[in-house]
Amino acid sequence: MSTAGKVIKCKAAIAWELKKPFSIVEIEVAPPKAHEVRIKILASGVCHSDEHVLSGALQFPFPIILGHEAAGVVESVGEGVTSMKPGDKVVPLFLPQCGKCVPCKHRKGNLCIKNSIGKPTGLMADGTSRFTYKGQQIHSFVRTGTFSEYTVVDENQVAKIDAAAPLEKVCLIGCGFSTGYGAALNSAEVKPGSTCAVFGLGGVGLSVVMGCKAAGASRIIGVDINKNKFAKAKELGATECVNPLDFKKPINEVLFDLTNGEGVDYSFEVIGLTDTMAAALMSCNENYGVCVIVGAPPTASEITFSPLHIFTGRTWKGCLYGGWKSKESATKLVKDFMEGKFTLDPLITHTLPFDKINEAFELLRTGKCIRCVLVY
Amino acid sequence: MSTAGKVIKCKAAIAWELKKPFSIVEIEVAPPKAHEVRIKILASGVCHSDEHVLSGALQFPFPIILGHEAAGVVESVGEGVTSMKPGDKVVPLFLPQCGKCVPCKHRKGNLCIKNSIGKPTGLMADGTSRFTYKGQQIHSFVRTGTFSEYTVVDENQVAKIDAAAPLEKVCLIGCGFSTGYGAALNSAEVKPGSTCAVFGLGGVGLSVVMGCKAAGASRIIGVDINKNKFAKAKELGATECVNPLDFKKPINEVLFDLTNGEGVDYSFEVIGLTDTMAAALMSCNENYGVCVIVGAPPTASEITFSPLHIFTGRTWKGCLYGGWKSKESATKLVKDFMEGKFTLDPLITHTLPFDKINEAFELLRTGKCIRCVLVY
Repeated sequence: MSTAGKVIKCKAAIAWELKKPFSIVEIEVAPPKAHEVRIKILASGVCHSDEHVLSGALQFPFPIILGHEAAGVVESVGEGVTSMKPGDKVVPLFLPQCGKCVPCKHRKGNLCIKNSIGKPTGLMADGTSRFTYKGQQIHSFVRTGTFSEYTVVDENQVAKIDAAAPLEKVCLIGCGFSTGYGAALNSAEVKPGSTCAVFGLGGVGLSVVMGCKAAGASRIIGVDINKNKFAKAKELGATECVNPLDFKKPINEVLFDLTNGEGVDYSFEVIGLTDTMAAALMSCNENYGVCVIVGAPPTASEITFSPLHIFTGRTWKGCLYGGWKSKESATKLVKDFMEGKFTLDPLITHTLPFDKINEAFELLRTGKCIRCVLVY
Repeated sequence: MSTAGKVIKCKAAIAWELKKPFSIVEIEVAPPKAHEVRIKILASGVCHSDEHVLSGALQFPFPIILGHEAAGVVESVGEGVTSMKPGDKVVPLFLPQCGKCVPCKHRKGNLCIKNSIGKPTGLMADGTSRFTYKGQQIHSFVRTGTFSEYTVVDENQVAKIDAAAPLEKVCLIGCGFSTGYGAALNSAEVKPGSTCAVFGLGGVGLSVVMGCKAAGASRIIGVDINKNKFAKAKELGATECVNPLDFKKPINEVLFDLTNGEGVDYSFEVIGLTDTMAAALMSCNENYGVCVIVGAPPTASEITFSPLHIFTGRTWKGCLYGGWKSKESATKLVKDFMEGKFTLDPLITHTLPFDKINEAFELLRTGKCIRCVLVY
């Protein structure tokens, strides 16, 4: 019997307050409103941005259902939805793509005006949530809230994908992989033969490494204070790795030493710390170096730096979701994955049942996993 | 009788100490060493960077002969100089182009490793000066020191130009014009139909305006607290001008209001103040906006900002000499000028004899001139 149009009762992981474990409880998920899609989530990766909300570094209202890197199947669609139908495999997206606004139509734009980044209400565009627990409204992280067996997402925030795609892998295209891979290809526009440095070798950092390699970089230097990440980085394309803890001098000076005093052509900060953002900038060539901030900075963070460091020609930039136009690109990236243009397997070190979400976050916090995917 | 190989006695303007007038005195100019060129200077523009040394904002050793935006005729050449000969018209350059180093060979590089920017010794590469006054060594600003009837410059820092070029005009290609024009064309890579904001409408700012116009920008907003600069800005391509003093809200918010809440596509800081550098960044679109720092920041200045402002996709960059590869580009830009591809006349509001250098600086400090050119 179809559940379309009805409230669905299902399991979800609610974060009730900062720094506390999730509670898995039964919630109610309202039917999709007009131009919304209700999705049965089948796999969801655990990302540092989820942890940043739990830790308070990214400020969102509680109680909240986190999760934004997922894949699933459309359960039902609201009025006016024409781009997908029940049964379609999809990837929810934390950035919408309406296709009509100025950023969507801009050559380099991907921050659709319908986005909720920077407006962290935890509510849908109409100011309400589709999630309730015993009558209480529960927030949804970046309007995806995928740590739930069912979620409701705006049609502009869902990409229909290849029907044969393995959901427990392509869920990474919803955030981590695309964010890193695109930072190298779209934002930095890494050129063949260049030298790159990647600060932070988690799932996103390794995807930056893959992007640099795909772009033809001849030298890719991985930087991490956890040397256990080096083997995987080299497997994916890093030509060498350095641990800042092994040196007395600042890491930017180490990188200058390693590059004959020139600095790297491209550097990527994939951690989300202001100190490493500044170090990444200082690591690239003072004249033509490009530094991309990929890691999400804490909400209230500030950097103090000398403008002389960019006056001489450096470029400092950032990107969300790797600069990809979300909806069209996620579909395309899944297609590329299915055609073997890149791999996701090495990024997924752990797979756990959804029930074990607290264990998954512990793996993330202790740096023991690259990506841990929850399966539902 | 040839002066080649001999010390030349001539007039020069020496800055003896911070914030004091120049003294015009007779100095001695040594012959060019190997790979150097001695030039009879015939015209030199007065630029804010010269004033920044006098004020202490840019730290250089005194006593010093300033001046770096000039044109003249080769008097004699040192051993091994083959790219020019006595009698050739030339423009000295504050950035060298050796053509052999990594930045010179890099697609986007122009900070030749032989540059003296950031190593403000006031001396030639061999650690000495060609200028002496009563036996005392006098420094040369960025190895050009053009506020002298004769100066000695490294061959890599001189561009041979069209023999018909009017020196009292094309001297501006040595710094101000090229710096601004190139910031729009090379660094920002302004696209047709875009909206630009230019902070600071002096000689360099107006050259940015000209570059934006040449690139096909459809809207160019001039920003200055001196409304007397607006008429000239409009003459050169600004479609509108705003005075931050006319508003209670910050200028970046004013620019968002003027652009339907989108922010400009490209912003340029052409003043050299940290507050306006931050305001220029905040004025451009948060997702695809590009902000270029063109004004030289004070030596010890710092900016404190939230990395979220670039994380969302903005680009913050800088450029020296408009990103042009100096030697080849100055020759080319003079050629373009001779072919009528751009004008310099509107930038030159005053022409004074070299003797009146203190008067010229007073015009600069009081904002009464765009460019004042000294003729020798």
